[in-house]
Amino acid sequence: MRFEIEKKLKNKLGRAGKITTPNGVIETPSFTVVGTKATVKSLTPEQVNSLGAQAVLGNTYHLYLQPGDDVVKAGGGIGKFMNWKGPTVTDSGGFQVFSLGAGFGTGENKFSKKDNFVQSSTLNNSEHGKLAKIDEEGVEFQSHIDGSKHYFTPEKSIEIQSNIGADIIFAFDECTSPTAEHEYQKEAMERTHRWAKRSLDHHNHLVARHPSRNKQALFGIVQGGRFEDLRKESAKFMAELCPPAGGFDGFGIGGSFSKEDLDEALAWVNKILPESKPRHLLGIGEPIDLFIGVENGVDMFDCVSPTRIARNGTLYTKEGRINIENAKYTKDFSKIEEDCECYTCKNYTKAYLAHLFRAKEMLASTLASIHNLYFIVNLVKNIRQSILDENFDEFKEEFLKSYYAK
Amino acid sequence: MRFEIEKKLKNKLGRAGKITTPNGVIETPSFTVVGTKATVKSLTPEQVNSLGAQAVLGNTYHLYLQPGDDVVKAGGGIGKFMNWKGPTVTDSGGFQVFSLGAGFGTGENKFSKKDNFVQSSTLNNSEHGKLAKIDEEGVEFQSHIDGSKHYFTPEKSIEIQSNIGADIIFAFDECTSPTAEHEYQKEAMERTHRWAKRSLDHHNHLVARHPSRNKQALFGIVQGGRFEDLRKESAKFMAELCPPAGGFDGFGIGGSFSKEDLDEALAWVNKILPESKPRHLLGIGEPIDLFIGVENGVDMFDCVSPTRIARNGTLYTKEGRINIENAKYTKDFSKIEEDCECYTCKNYTKAYLAHLFRAKEMLASTLASIHNLYFIVNLVKNIRQSILDENFDEFKEEFLKSYYAK
Repeated sequence: MRFEIEKKLKNKLGRAGKITTPNGVIETPSFTVVGTKATVKSLTPEQVNSLGAQAVLGNTYHLYLQPGDDVVKAGGGIGKFMNWKGPTVTDSGGFQVFSLGAGFGTGENKFSKKDNFVQSSTLNNSEHGKLAKIDEEGVEFQSHIDGSKHYFTPEKSIEIQSNIGADIIFAFDECTSPTAEHEYQKEAMERTHRWAKRSLDHHNHLVARHPSRNKQALFGIVQGGRFEDLRKESAKFMAELCPPAGGFDGFGIGGSFSKEDLDEALAWVNKILPESKPRHLLGIGEPIDLFIGVENGVDMFDCVSPTRIARNGTLYTKEGRINIENAKYTKDFSKIEEDCECYTCKNYTKAYLAHLFRAKEMLASTLASIHNLYFIVNLVKNIRQSILDENFDEFKEEFLKSYYAK
Repeated sequence: MRFEIEKKLKNKLGRAGKITTPNGVIETPSFTVVGTKATVKSLTPEQVNSLGAQAVLGNTYHLYLQPGDDVVKAGGGIGKFMNWKGPTVTDSGGFQVFSLGAGFGTGENKFSKKDNFVQSSTLNNSEHGKLAKIDEEGVEFQSHIDGSKHYFTPEKSIEIQSNIGADIIFAFDECTSPTAEHEYQKEAMERTHRWAKRSLDHHNHLVARHPSRNKQALFGIVQGGRFEDLRKESAKFMAELCPPAGGFDGFGIGGSFSKEDLDEALAWVNKILPESKPRHLLGIGEPIDLFIGVENGVDMFDCVSPTRIARNGTLYTKEGRINIENAKYTKDFSKIEEDCECYTCKNYTKAYLAHLFRAKEMLASTLASIHNLYFIVNLVKNIRQSILDENFDEFKEEFLKSYYAK
């Protein structure tokens, strides 16, 4: 994997760049589309490609449980298995293990049975609920599918991600609640650091054993919650694990912080992380967050939100979100956005989408997901372009003024 | 609408032909894909077109209730509303009114809440259940969605179908159970004849009132159950309603007969119906039925079965059906059919499909529906080709030997 910086923002941490992976190029800043179980929900890979997505992120926890990383490996790795011809990414499994798998938020989150969580808003318990059993070696968790018990270690996570075979993988980390206190955050962060070192060592071991395989890029994850001292300490630790050769190829920045902390926390971290390696902000993707992320040095994003809210009939527009099930749209034969170039807006009216949602037709999810992903993927592309064109601040102001006007 | 016969089977009633509609040509025999609520479930119109489908059939009953034929009309008619650029067909609403809407088979049919019925297998009650109130004028029924009461007459059905705006529409008919006795079948058939006449008169009235609109082709429906005298009487009546100018443009052949009666019943009817007009066998589409239909003079088919069974993981192959959820497919990296040219077979393995079904991912329905529709649509295309190539009998024997071998 190679990372080149093309242009930087003046007086800010943001930059436009290019990541070259064995399966293609990711122009950054970039929004990576989530394909939890080796499928972007309700879309074909061609539809994902057509809407402008450059990379797909699968979830290690989900793929390990279903269909099993051995099946994905036997199918030629996640890209070939799911017929996605571009770059791929997997997360470490940490987030799901500590939320879904450990009974986090059970009954509180309407998505808990079906999908992975919205990262920053659902972790309420620094003890990870009753079902999480963490020790120095790893974590025991229960499958959200059948309750069966499993044990993840940093080495196990790396083995699984090696089998899944994505271009970019992540070190195993402990995810904590944003409300966890300093003492627990520090303990968890220090464990995450030791696990990062073990993830890196095991990754290097696998690479040495299979030199002919495409080398996966390994990203270390910075944690530390909302605390400045911890975030800085974590960034320093990860930065030091980097050079010389064999270090991390990039960095993940883990939730959990509240939305209010986002810009500060990113600035603390990204001022310390080496400029020459890409940074992925994990699980965050609302429009405002994308601007904050980019200007504070984030190169990659991923989030289930655009497709999840799409399946509930919530659609992005430049004037904010709308819910297509609102009665006023049933006879509205205009497009979601008249000037939107997505497949959905080029071919369908609001009235047709309203009908599909009310009739609970599957095509509703497909068309809404295409629009929302197009909106977010292309917003990040436009942010990138504004860096290249040196008008980031104007673009940001104009967009946010319209989007949050109501 | 124009219908031309290109070639006939020797010593049989089958023929290859061509129907020209305002929105394009249908080469016959042809399988029309069902898009009940102005969407072919889980597919985009481009996917439907790519798999070789020539025409889409919407259900009048469903579209009347949701989103309402006024909405479809305001959206430019069914084709424009749903972004389908080829020919379109609507049924009369009769079948659903007498099954879904009248409480037919309630609780007995697993699809009763979600979809329309499989035509020939679910009608068990010649009295149409307690909720059907038939009189000479029309039929009162309850919405399967909210229980609200509605009243369909032949004139109402034609008005609705005029609003929906398909290229081919059907006269309003009474659908009976295949087990109904002769006395009731005769009574229902005679009512259907009077309703056919009223449908035709009202259609001609609408055409005269709106001469500038694309003229919809109106098909009359032959009924008569499994009784030779009634089927022949019904065919004669419909044939006589045909010439001179202003008569039916083609014919529907309504269930209900058992599978065993199919070839005889079709032969009785199609020997009487004028050769120069196309015939649509309503709601039947299993492979064996397609061959029996064609050799007995059927030009058009439609059936929900290919997409419905697809959503349950049942896939057509030349060696019969398979269920992709069978454990043996979870690590089977072969295609559904190695020589199948459909999008699904060109890009995905059985193991991937098995995973999508087990994970209850929406893409499962999409990929399975594409394969099954491709299979059936292209089977009918190949039957057509075998008529043109004068090897229908050989093709039929070879296909059925393989398909029903197990």
